[in-house]
Amino acid sequence: MTVPAPTAAQVDLQARARELAEVFKERATEVDRTEDYPVQNAKELAAAGFMGMTIPQEHGGPGLSLYDVVLVVEEIAKGCGVSGRIVVDGNLGALSIIMKAGSEELKKHVAELVLGGDKPVIQITEPAGGTDVNAMTTTAEVRGDTVVLNGTKTWITGAKDSIVNVVVAKLVEDGEDKGLCAVYCERDDEGFDLGKRNYMMGLRGIPEMDVHFNDLVVPRSHVLMFGLKDIMGRYNNQRVGAATVALGLAQAAYEDALHYTTQRQQFGRPISDFQGLRWKLVDMRLALDASRLLIHRAAASASLSKSGLPDPELAALAKLHAAENAITVSSTALQLHGALGYSRNIRVERLYRDARMFTLGGGTTEALRNLIGSQILKGLV
Amino acid sequence: MTVPAPTAAQVDLQARARELAEVFKERATEVDRTEDYPVQNAKELAAAGFMGMTIPQEHGGPGLSLYDVVLVVEEIAKGCGVSGRIVVDGNLGALSIIMKAGSEELKKHVAELVLGGDKPVIQITEPAGGTDVNAMTTTAEVRGDTVVLNGTKTWITGAKDSIVNVVVAKLVEDGEDKGLCAVYCERDDEGFDLGKRNYMMGLRGIPEMDVHFNDLVVPRSHVLMFGLKDIMGRYNNQRVGAATVALGLAQAAYEDALHYTTQRQQFGRPISDFQGLRWKLVDMRLALDASRLLIHRAAASASLSKSGLPDPELAALAKLHAAENAITVSSTALQLHGALGYSRNIRVERLYRDARMFTLGGGTTEALRNLIGSQILKGLV
Amino acid sequence: MTVPAPTAAQVDLQARARELAEVFKERATEVDRTEDYPVQNAKELAAAGFMGMTIPQEHGGPGLSLYDVVLVVEEIAKGCGVSGRIVVDGNLGALSIIMKAGSEELKKHVAELVLGGDKPVIQITEPAGGTDVNAMTTTAEVRGDTVVLNGTKTWITGAKDSIVNVVVAKLVEDGEDKGLCAVYCERDDEGFDLGKRNYMMGLRGIPEMDVHFNDLVVPRSHVLMFGLKDIMGRYNNQRVGAATVALGLAQAAYEDALHYTTQRQQFGRPISDFQGLRWKLVDMRLALDASRLLIHRAAASASLSKSGLPDPELAALAKLHAAENAITVSSTALQLHGALGYSRNIRVERLYRDARMFTLGGGTTEALRNLIGSQILKGLV
Amino acid sequence: MTVPAPTAAQVDLQARARELAEVFKERATEVDRTEDYPVQNAKELAAAGFMGMTIPQEHGGPGLSLYDVVLVVEEIAKGCGVSGRIVVDGNLGALSIIMKAGSEELKKHVAELVLGGDKPVIQITEPAGGTDVNAMTTTAEVRGDTVVLNGTKTWITGAKDSIVNVVVAKLVEDGEDKGLCAVYCERDDEGFDLGKRNYMMGLRGIPEMDVHFNDLVVPRSHVLMFGLKDIMGRYNNQRVGAATVALGLAQAAYEDALHYTTQRQQFGRPISDFQGLRWKLVDMRLALDASRLLIHRAAASASLSKSGLPDPELAALAKLHAAENAITVSSTALQLHGALGYSRNIRVERLYRDARMFTLGGGTTEALRNLIGSQILKGLV
Repeated sequence: MTVPAPTAAQVDLQARARELAEVFKERATEVDRTEDYPVQNAKELAAAGFMGMTIPQEHGGPGLSLYDVVLVVEEIAKGCGVSGRIVVDGNLGALSIIMKAGSEELKKHVAELVLGGDKPVIQITEPAGGTDVNAMTTTAEVRGDTVVLNGTKTWITGAKDSIVNVVVAKLVEDGEDKGLCAVYCERDDEGFDLGKRNYMMGLRGIPEMDVHFNDLVVPRSHVLMFGLKDIMGRYNNQRVGAATVALGLAQAAYEDALHYTTQRQQFGRPISDFQGLRWKLVDMRLALDASRLLIHRAAASASLSKSGLPDPELAALAKLHAAENAITVSSTALQLHGALGYSRNIRVERLYRDARMFTLGGGTTEALRNLIGSQILKGLV
Repeated sequence: MTVPAPTAAQVDLQARARELAEVFKERATEVDRTEDYPVQNAKELAAAGFMGMTIPQEHGGPGLSLYDVVLVVEEIAKGCGVSGRIVVDGNLGALSIIMKAGSEELKKHVAELVLGGDKPVIQITEPAGGTDVNAMTTTAEVRGDTVVLNGTKTWITGAKDSIVNVVVAKLVEDGEDKGLCAVYCERDDEGFDLGKRNYMMGLRGIPEMDVHFNDLVVPRSHVLMFGLKDIMGRYNNQRVGAATVALGLAQAAYEDALHYTTQRQQFGRPISDFQGLRWKLVDMRLALDASRLLIHRAAASASLSKSGLPDPELAALAKLHAAENAITVSSTALQLHGALGYSRNIRVERLYRDARMFTLGGGTTEALRNLIGSQILKGLV
Repeated sequence: MTVPAPTAAQVDLQARARELAEVFKERATEVDRTEDYPVQNAKELAAAGFMGMTIPQEHGGPGLSLYDVVLVVEEIAKGCGVSGRIVVDGNLGALSIIMKAGSEELKKHVAELVLGGDKPVIQITEPAGGTDVNAMTTTAEVRGDTVVLNGTKTWITGAKDSIVNVVVAKLVEDGEDKGLCAVYCERDDEGFDLGKRNYMMGLRGIPEMDVHFNDLVVPRSHVLMFGLKDIMGRYNNQRVGAATVALGLAQAAYEDALHYTTQRQQFGRPISDFQGLRWKLVDMRLALDASRLLIHRAAASASLSKSGLPDPELAALAKLHAAENAITVSSTALQLHGALGYSRNIRVERLYRDARMFTLGGGTTEALRNLIGSQILKGLV
Repeated sequence: MTVPAPTAAQVDLQARARELAEVFKERATEVDRTEDYPVQNAKELAAAGFMGMTIPQEHGGPGLSLYDVVLVVEEIAKGCGVSGRIVVDGNLGALSIIMKAGSEELKKHVAELVLGGDKPVIQITEPAGGTDVNAMTTTAEVRGDTVVLNGTKTWITGAKDSIVNVVVAKLVEDGEDKGLCAVYCERDDEGFDLGKRNYMMGLRGIPEMDVHFNDLVVPRSHVLMFGLKDIMGRYNNQRVGAATVALGLAQAAYEDALHYTTQRQQFGRPISDFQGLRWKLVDMRLALDASRLLIHRAAASASLSKSGLPDPELAALAKLHAAENAITVSSTALQLHGALGYSRNIRVERLYRDARMFTLGGGTTEALRNLIGSQILKGLV
């Protein structure tokens, strides 16, 4: 177990992220209200060097680590959860699949797009599917040198606004099911049809949409990876990233509560003087510290592994803790604002709605408990 | 301690409320979206006899009990939380102050309005005030046979859409502060000026607004009651009503979860088959039963008391339990829907936002814990 | 749903129980220390009319209801948990099986024993068995007019000190397994051999022992009941009784905490003045009230049913709530005593150990959640 | 924030501690039963080099860090909580006060005693005192070159079995109160009188006793330190140590639960197969990991500080988390054993009782919340 102290470069990275987050913070209410993808934020993230941080130097990126990404994500998410998710997708998940398994040409192409501000998407979930990936029906059929995608995906995060896509589908060759694979395609490909949008409780600036594949044809080299285990293995860093967005939102809620309870007077004293309220602040602080340590441990495990990927169990533990505690912490923060907390005039209301996502998306906490359970019982039964 | 079995008449009342709630359920999403007061619902509530149920027969009402009201409120709130709140205000709180202390003429006048569908409002909270009622600055100044209101109130539930108002203000006579009193006035009185609206996380169909009083003049007979203790004493039935709206919302969320988990298949089985998920349903059920028993006990205590008001401690215990558990239960229900639960396409998303109000409005849970704490320690220290 | 107000007779019953409990309270530390069955308490319970309260008048008892029993059990358990369990066994469970299904002669015989202070025992659990009753191996073999018991039971509550026993065993006739049945026998029968004692964390005054049956012969008429469903149906009242012992222990812990926090001074004030501590008292009070309402509802359901037995779902909900909250409440009470709470000089230390039993014995909370889950999903999947 | 990876030397240290813990594990039930101080364990701890690890090389110790100590304590506490506490006291708390502030002669003398197996004691609490240290009444009166101790201390951990004592008392010079100081004395000094023993729920092998000082005379050089802040500052490492004992006990309970649930069969499967039970294992694992990270972070902060002491806030956060979660985790572990968990035949019953201490002793969790609350609000109000 190890959680490294940040280096000077990392402290600087964090400081720059914090600065940009202050700008995003001002725009976050508007992003929530309009439910539009914050294109300007994505550009500024790219300009600041926060997109494609994990892209190796040989492909034009700075080759930073998951731990670096995590430090940036927390800061950005404190200002704007939607933008925090953009940083996650702009560095982990789909991007790491492509950078691991794409052709040199594809890597170069995608690197350019992402360093320029495009937010890659991974497409896994299907309407009937949920946690049961074996029920997947989208097919990638081999036809000569090409592969043809057909099917429907749902809960595709940012579909409409992202060029780079990685689709998990059932590979079919000569009519036979060859198992799952990950296929690269782009939003503007023919046969990539956007479906209905799922308007959400929070994180409203990233559209969640259905995507229909109607005979979308890609070269066979766009089949990047085979087998769910390998694909989901790459997804573990995304999980650590998502945990960090949850943490950032909760941290922001805590800071708002700290500010409010020390300013708000009742019976002639700041309400943070009241023991019952003060203890709530302490419990928030404790939960945040524990989440952060678990996240940093998971992130650091990536640097220690050959694959560059975090330990799946540590990643799942971090996500589980951060996601559940983000709900608790943001709810307590809201509660400490009294009736005011229920008003959309105040940021904590949004933080509470945003924070509710992380036990649901990217692996429900139920699925994570199953996964961790299997790990800890491995070899024992 | 007693929780009476409902009589045949009460079972019938409940059934009629349930029927109307089915209609409201269909409209609830639209009420949430438009954030407009559901005028049509209020009319239909009046037509069905659910407004002014507590008005004594001599003033034209059916003279029903708090327990009757509570049975109706739960059913209505299951269909539409906003409408549940309308039933609460249409039977308890401000209305019971007027029916206790108004002149015969005023009682007759208000009875007509409420039986016709008007939702009375009580105005207590001020911008700087919160739990600390002593900090109240709105004044009711005696000038000859009249009283003149000045000041600003906030979080006034339904201000814009309600005629009947009861304002808690500091009585001033000959320049002297005479303590708090409750004053009757109407929305259309001169000097009753609507301020800004606080757009809220949930329960969006009832506008929460500021109200400014600018030399609003009422006859002296409109000063209904003196002393915070007596005024808040009448407010205890409102507290039981609010608890019941929370319960109804949570019950609806539970029923949705029951439906979803038994329909939704994963790995070839309804997900309610999975032990971990099933136990969550059990915990929801247990919390709901406990809340309902506590609420019914508090409601029944009103019938046993001379004043017709519920025991303050029992009312506070019921509100505390129902408000906190409504958050937990609706969150679990949402969780059981997986990613779908985060979507505004599905009712549980609204229920979760609606349910978040009840630990905040009408006495925060912190204030309730203080109140109950004082009660249980009375005479011991 | 109904929780009746106690009648005057019930209030009197409760008062008498409370009085006797004060005597038992003085002895409870010693019972815990010596781990001896409190024979004297059992005698005084019988003398006070608290054993065999449910025995019908035609068999010499007063024919009281489950609700009556529950009122007595809470009071007695407040003074001494072990004695509370004696009242449970002296009125419910095994006794109600015998009173339902025994021959007239047996009923008369058992009534005399129990009214004289004997505490009946039901024997269900086997070393390998736990929740899985189908794995039961104890047999009741039919041989002509007799039945012969063989096998081993464990966790037999009070084995050594009780004459009246009901054993659940597999009925075997002509070498065939005929399903489970309940067989009456007595401690002093030949072939009834006491095994080792399981020394426990708490409730130390009732020995939990193994019992070995070695060709114990009873007349065939001692086979009282067939089928697990019917047998366990009678056991539901025992469950309500156990819940009430848990409640009584928790209530006693709460009262100790109330006393201590109002007497103990820190920084010149009673520590109940500190908001954080005060809120803990409130949460205890709320949990106790909810448990009591759930228990009384379950008990009252027995009077409403033809069988005279409580609704199984309501009984299970009551037990689940009371058992889990007794742990929480007694732990909070202990915590409020500071370091002193950890000392065996003080009663709350014992209450905490005693209270830990009820999620484990008489159906674990896991088994109860399974049972309730099946009930609420019945007809839905 | 940093949690260093253990070095090879630390891994080895841990392994050796684990080995010794296996021996202690066999004796732990007997220690619990007899309530005798495990003198033999203390000797073997000394022989293995686990007493006085923090003593600098110039005084004959190996000069190890708090992090080293913490690694050893967790392992030892897994085998035997009482022995874990001996390691804590044998390396931290009182010992670090003496090693900081004693005369060279005293340091040498104490180093010998502790390296030989003596467990130092700090004496703070007084019968009336609790958290309110200002209420302290024990005096250290200056008389010429000596200081004379008078007063009564309580909850003195291991009083009877420890030679080395540090007493916190009010310094009195010329009849004036000069504030608190820490005074060195020994069990065998004249005027050091053992009072009554507080028999405890758990950790029974270390007697908690009262100590009466009746004109105990020490040389003035035995006044080691002045001011509560400095004294309690040294005590912070003890807090991290205590947290680690709690962690070790909880970890042991978790391991027992893992073993039991994978061995125990119900319905033909190991019970760890049941989702609801499996998720409990996951939650235990998560809590343990979070506690360990918080403890290691606090321990590592000592190495980063000039004083060699851990950051007080980080120490308090670690203790708060570990103490509360040790109760939860050991309770869940017990629960997973079913009725068996309630039996003193099984280790988890003791672990549950042992684990209950850490929210009470060495600063209640309430006091810790107050302390952390002050820290996080510092400069804000």
